[in-house]
Amino acid sequence: MTAAWCFPLSADPPLFGVSISRKRFSHNLIEKSKDFVINIPGPELLGAVRTCGEKTGKDTDKFGLAKLTKEHSEKVAAPSIAECQTSIECKVVEAKETGDHVLFVGEAVNIKKRKIGKKIIQDERGELRGL
Amino acid sequence: MTAAWCFPLSADPPLFGVSISRKRFSHNLIEKSKDFVINIPGPELLGAVRTCGEKTGKDTDKFGLAKLTKEHSEKVAAPSIAECQTSIECKVVEAKETGDHVLFVGEAVNIKKRKIGKKIIQDERGELRGL
Repeated sequence: MTAAWCFPLSADPPLFGVSISRKRFSHNLIEKSKDFVINIPGPELLGAVRTCGEKTGKDTDKFGLAKLTKEHSEKVAAPSIAECQTSIECKVVEAKETGDHVLFVGEAVNIKKRKIGKKIIQDERGELRGL
Repeated sequence: MTAAWCFPLSADPPLFGVSISRKRFSHNLIEKSKDFVINIPGPELLGAVRTCGEKTGKDTDKFGLAKLTKEHSEKVAAPSIAECQTSIECKVVEAKETGDHVLFVGEAVNIKKRKIGKKIIQDERGELRGL
């Protein structure tokens, strides 16, 4: 799924959080597998990001629809996305109810970086370069 | 302080998280006051954001140094920043140890929007407009 509510929580150990509504299909998947992958897209994937945010994987092959390639992860069961610049494989260490969402806290157990897509850098004056 | 690790956690009730190292002065302030304000800057405040991220408020007047204006918040003790586009006043409902940081979960009790600074919008093709 497209997860805007995804963030780092600790440097050592490397922990990441993802906050997902219980209504989402991804919530069920993570609850079963106890792992997830944070795939970081470049700006050229905006269309795919939108598709993955608008459709549910419950009855749709989102990889096919968004023209993304499923890739086996190295240390977790959840797949990675081959078109993304970075994939952070996480094992869930805690699941916590926060309001109408569940916060899954995951420890990064593997990271894969790929030299693809555009990189955006913000310079000293706040200008965005690389677009 | 400049907090990159700051994120929404729930829509109803409106909960926000901020993950702060125990070493930071802000950690002590929030632990005492049990509240915080998320001030969202425009890109023109990049210099001030950097200053507030590099200096500690323990022995420095960061408002003076970064040329920012302290403003009384309406429903919490922590001050707001008058130059920011939005200030979200939060009361801490939980503090939780996550690795080497503490995750403060705050419920938004007031929001102030100001018509200042540049707005950046990402269009259909991924282009950033308004810079």
